Amino acid sequence: MARLFDRALIVGVGLIGSSLARAMRERGLAGAIIGWDLDDGVLARARALGVIDEGAGGLAEGLHKADLVVVATPVGATGALLADIAARAAPGAIVIDVGSVKGVVADAALAASDRVRIVPCHPVAGTEQSGPDAGFAALFRERWCILTPLDRADASYRAAVETVSALWRAVGAKVEIMDAAHHDLALAVTSHLPHLIAFTLVGAADDIESVAEAEVVKYSAGGFRDFTRIAASDPIMWRDVFLHNREAVLEALGRFTEELFLLQRAIRWGDGETLEKVFRRGRELRRAIVAAGQETAAPNFGRNEGGATVPRAGSD
Amino acid sequence: MARLFDRALIVGVGLIGSSLARAMRERGLAGAIIGWDLDDGVLARARALGVIDEGAGGLAEGLHKADLVVVATPVGATGALLADIAARAAPGAIVIDVGSVKGVVADAALAASDRVRIVPCHPVAGTEQSGPDAGFAALFRERWCILTPLDRADASYRAAVETVSALWRAVGAKVEIMDAAHHDLALAVTSHLPHLIAFTLVGAADDIESVAEAEVVKYSAGGFRDFTRIAASDPIMWRDVFLHNREAVLEALGRFTEELFLLQRAIRWGDGETLEKVFRRGRELRRAIVAAGQETAAPNFGRNEGGATVPRAGSD
Repeated sequence: MARLFDRALIVGVGLIGSSLARAMRERGLAGAIIGWDLDDGVLARARALGVIDEGAGGLAEGLHKADLVVVATPVGATGALLADIAARAAPGAIVIDVGSVKGVVADAALAASDRVRIVPCHPVAGTEQSGPDAGFAALFRERWCILTPLDRADASYRAAVETVSALWRAVGAKVEIMDAAHHDLALAVTSHLPHLIAFTLVGAADDIESVAEAEVVKYSAGGFRDFTRIAASDPIMWRDVFLHNREAVLEALGRFTEELFLLQRAIRWGDGETLEKVFRRGRELRRAIVAAGQETAAPNFGRNEGGATVPRAGSD
Repeated sequence: MARLFDRALIVGVGLIGSSLARAMRERGLAGAIIGWDLDDGVLARARALGVIDEGAGGLAEGLHKADLVVVATPVGATGALLADIAARAAPGAIVIDVGSVKGVVADAALAASDRVRIVPCHPVAGTEQSGPDAGFAALFRERWCILTPLDRADASYRAAVETVSALWRAVGAKVEIMDAAHHDLALAVTSHLPHLIAFTLVGAADDIESVAEAEVVKYSAGGFRDFTRIAASDPIMWRDVFLHNREAVLEALGRFTEELFLLQRAIRWGDGETLEKVFRRGRELRRAIVAAGQETAAPNFGRNEGGATVPRAGSD
């Protein structure tokens, strides 16, 4: 793969930032990859892991000569960073973010200087882990990356959108372009609401005094454990998502609550037909997700095979 | 392992019944393992797979000489089956069920003839798949099996509880004994509510007309796909669970809804502190579940490794 950038600056070298750095290095997409992080320890760790070539020695120094800047911070920090970067980066530099909310990023990007070319991005990929150690180059493979370009008609900006698309494709992602408002609605349904529900379930289980936490742990294989994966995701990142995509999350949550009350009523009145009808949709939708390459077909997510909480049949 | 039974009859040779049959055969726990199923096709398939030695040729014939009867049907069918089996089985036979609700089973068992020794069981194990092909011998390893013995003080019954405990331990499970009412409450929290919530989320996503199903599928790696696993579980089995554990599920659901409204309010009013506080519990609880051997520590459930929706880093 041809080199796309001379000098990339990764601002925030956590799970996503360090994964992108690793993938770019693997594919030879940048001449140098430098990093900056608000947390000096995280930055030093990324350097020690060889994820980045050098620490940036301050954001201003890092921006010097960078022709790609990647903002990979919790979304609450993105707006101010974009304004700062736009004012100080090399003229014409491409600036992307990777946040899970795009409306607030678009607003901040439009308000920032147009000395740089800001292309808001959201790679729909991740794990429940955080930090530079958690990153890996294959994170984006076969996952979708959504771009929500600004309303700028100039050829230079359009060229930047093309280059950013090429970057994501080069690290294995599939690229989709849509407007920020639609992104925020779609992701409220497929990502933000599921996380909120998982956090809620874990919080509620903690509060039921008639069932001890030890029992929740012991019998979690009955279903509860599935929710704890995304409920173990970074608390700050997710706090910021909910604070910055309020309207769409509340809308999706309203639909969820309606459906929940429908099922609650069916349970209360012994309406097995309604329950069965809703329950049947689950298999169909999962089948479609597996067919689309977005999920493993292995039972229990294949967790019995890979991480091996349980030995295979006949293994002893 | 010494043989525990001469002739075991498995009534219902789906995921759980066929897994127990496989595990018993692997460990040599019964002289013969015969099967019966309401669905002739399922019975023939279990026979063809070698899971059972012979089809029972009718329930009455299957009961002849069986010293263990395993009722592995949806819980809605269990009560009537227990009454029928108790009236016709060999005197003194041990009868167990494997259902996810125990209160209704205890009631049915107490009403049934005491010619047999009924020990209600619930192995907290499963996958989202169904049928004899989905079963495997290792399903119960490292999982808890809860026994809710009847209030019978005779030595013969106590011996049956011991034998049933030995059976579950022999197939790799850890045994816990508790009363049926507490079981139903604990499992409402750790299993029934999570399933209800997963079914609800999948149903709600289907209903939001501004986000196409194709988008839900594409961006499901943002979190939604985790919920589709348990939402793909057997609809009939789960319909029966909710119809037969109504009170405990509604109680757990009430707690969930309270927590949900707390978070909804925090989102509406921009209360990041409350969000962060609740979100932090997730990591702690997951860590405890992993430490207890009930979950894999691998990111994304290890699904990137085992079922391989995504190639490993550096694999191409």
